[in-house]
Amino acid sequence: MEQLITKPTLLLDKHKCKNNIKRMAFKAQQKGLSLRPHFKTHQSLEIGEWYKEFGVDKICVSSLAMAEYFSSHWQDITVAFPVNILEIDSINSLASKITLNLLVESKEAALYLKENVKHALGVFIKIDVGYNRVGVQPSNLELIEEILNVFDSLDRLKFKGFLAHAGHTYNCRSKEEILQVHEKAVRCLLPLKSKYESRYPESIISYGDTPSCSVTENFDGIDEIRPGNFVFYDLAQAQIGSTTNDDIAVAMACPIVAIYKERNEIVIYGGGVHFSKDRLEDEAYGTIYGKVVQHTGVSWTKPIPNMYVSKLSQEHGTVHVPDSEISNYKIGDYLVILPVHACMTGHEMKSYYVESDKIISRL
Amino acid sequence: MEQLITKPTLLLDKHKCKNNIKRMAFKAQQKGLSLRPHFKTHQSLEIGEWYKEFGVDKICVSSLAMAEYFSSHWQDITVAFPVNILEIDSINSLASKITLNLLVESKEAALYLKENVKHALGVFIKIDVGYNRVGVQPSNLELIEEILNVFDSLDRLKFKGFLAHAGHTYNCRSKEEILQVHEKAVRCLLPLKSKYESRYPESIISYGDTPSCSVTENFDGIDEIRPGNFVFYDLAQAQIGSTTNDDIAVAMACPIVAIYKERNEIVIYGGGVHFSKDRLEDEAYGTIYGKVVQHTGVSWTKPIPNMYVSKLSQEHGTVHVPDSEISNYKIGDYLVILPVHACMTGHEMKSYYVESDKIISRL
Repeated sequence: MEQLITKPTLLLDKHKCKNNIKRMAFKAQQKGLSLRPHFKTHQSLEIGEWYKEFGVDKICVSSLAMAEYFSSHWQDITVAFPVNILEIDSINSLASKITLNLLVESKEAALYLKENVKHALGVFIKIDVGYNRVGVQPSNLELIEEILNVFDSLDRLKFKGFLAHAGHTYNCRSKEEILQVHEKAVRCLLPLKSKYESRYPESIISYGDTPSCSVTENFDGIDEIRPGNFVFYDLAQAQIGSTTNDDIAVAMACPIVAIYKERNEIVIYGGGVHFSKDRLEDEAYGTIYGKVVQHTGVSWTKPIPNMYVSKLSQEHGTVHVPDSEISNYKIGDYLVILPVHACMTGHEMKSYYVESDKIISRL
Repeated sequence: MEQLITKPTLLLDKHKCKNNIKRMAFKAQQKGLSLRPHFKTHQSLEIGEWYKEFGVDKICVSSLAMAEYFSSHWQDITVAFPVNILEIDSINSLASKITLNLLVESKEAALYLKENVKHALGVFIKIDVGYNRVGVQPSNLELIEEILNVFDSLDRLKFKGFLAHAGHTYNCRSKEEILQVHEKAVRCLLPLKSKYESRYPESIISYGDTPSCSVTENFDGIDEIRPGNFVFYDLAQAQIGSTTNDDIAVAMACPIVAIYKERNEIVIYGGGVHFSKDRLEDEAYGTIYGKVVQHTGVSWTKPIPNMYVSKLSQEHGTVHVPDSEISNYKIGDYLVILPVHACMTGHEMKSYYVESDKIISRL
């Protein structure tokens, strides 16, 4: 394997990855939920196929570009991002080929779609369940009614239901905290479900976020879940309490280019353009950009204590290395590093390295 | 122009950009310095050609992949990154075609090159002038001698001189602070120059970083400068004191997808995968990811007071908007935003939008 890794390379542990998919698919099945995984995390047609083994037949993405990429393999795609009306041409083109679902959260966007869509389009109303990023406040029934009235005035706009993303679970630091946020978020949605289920009997409640979907057992009132990150997990998810380091399915392999024993540092070829600049405040180590593990062929060990990426510039990464480890490395070796945010690292890297010899490409 | 901007788009003000190049080229000429600009900032063959109008005939990059990309148009390229010996095949391939210069900072790397290079190769010794990222300590004459002795033992390895990057100027917050760091950094290099100039009469002192090269007038002892960011500049450089906002030559145009008057926020299509997650601690606004300007066709105004990107997730950006401004925008408009770190933003975006209608591509 060594000679194939000559520059920063994103390793994918297929076994862990498939287990992560299997676990979430099984949970959805057990709870009677529809699973519509978010594919922004991996952005790969080939990895996408692995979900089909577990019965997944619809997906979620975060841009029309991703929807276009996946439309060759997937017939039902939700773009979980407030509709960007400037991309109406792409919307019409995609809607002519697949079941395309968009998010609306303003009367202006609804009216624009009413005037400009040429094909049947599924529309969700995005509800803000406390994350305060995007969405209609669940108490703003006046706006919800206005948007629904626009949808009702054109057959092509099919109201699919209410969609929410409890992104504030990312501020949690334990399973208990996640459960609290989750329960409060779901409580925002239930009155909407009750109020509208007779008027729109086919409408659903679609609910996102990997932390909630990973730890909760109570999905009462929810019809569909849209977690994404769970396919890989990462150090941030382990810190939040969604998972443990053992389930993290991706790791960066980065060549060692310099060693400084006197200051306990190794410099790697691997920087912000590879990892992304997403960071994590670690209780023990302070601000970090990754934790070092030992490569074992197709997988890796638990993190080596006190060995982590402490700084990142554009192409350089600086790794803190304890005395007990630093003599084990030489330039030309590579370090293997669990990333802080797998979605961003996956986006930076343009392919995955699997099973010692195979490259999987992506968008 | 409006209808061509349908998603996050990196605008380039060609006039400002060429002025930035011209100013630095003129300064180098006046001071008798060789200018070897760092091209990691723009990574574009077409923008690269603009430097030739000002007499630039050699460049610097930060990876072998960039060197390969630029090798069709440039015959003399320095990879300003500690040599990654795992890429020896790319090194040999490039060295057979162009004048390729690499950085060495360990005896191990020097010995590896001695055993494996097949063509003439320029080699610099990287000196750490206080940034403490990579490089040999200037006082470590023993190591410098060991490396030089390896170079001297093989004709193919041509010692080009000592190379330094005073990256710690990025912690400065005024012109005066930059000058202090710069003078201290240069003082590390002068004894090496004196010591080795008779033994290697053709060797040079190569010196980097946009802040130093932008503000200092004293380059005594330096032969070559390698600034990169100056071609675009950005908010971080303005904060450091290298430039003012007026010279920033790139800005992101991002569609507005949601407006929240009650909380003074606009949400744009434009997130960490477009801007990068590089942030800036602004005195007035706290942590920000960009400042909003008004588009004026091929350029833009100064930043609008109290209007800035306060949060970034993967695809979403949240913009703080003052009361006085928020009624001026509607969904489907786009905001224009000065980036915090132009090198990273340029890397994320794969093309530049110039003069209202032209797309310039890059690596």
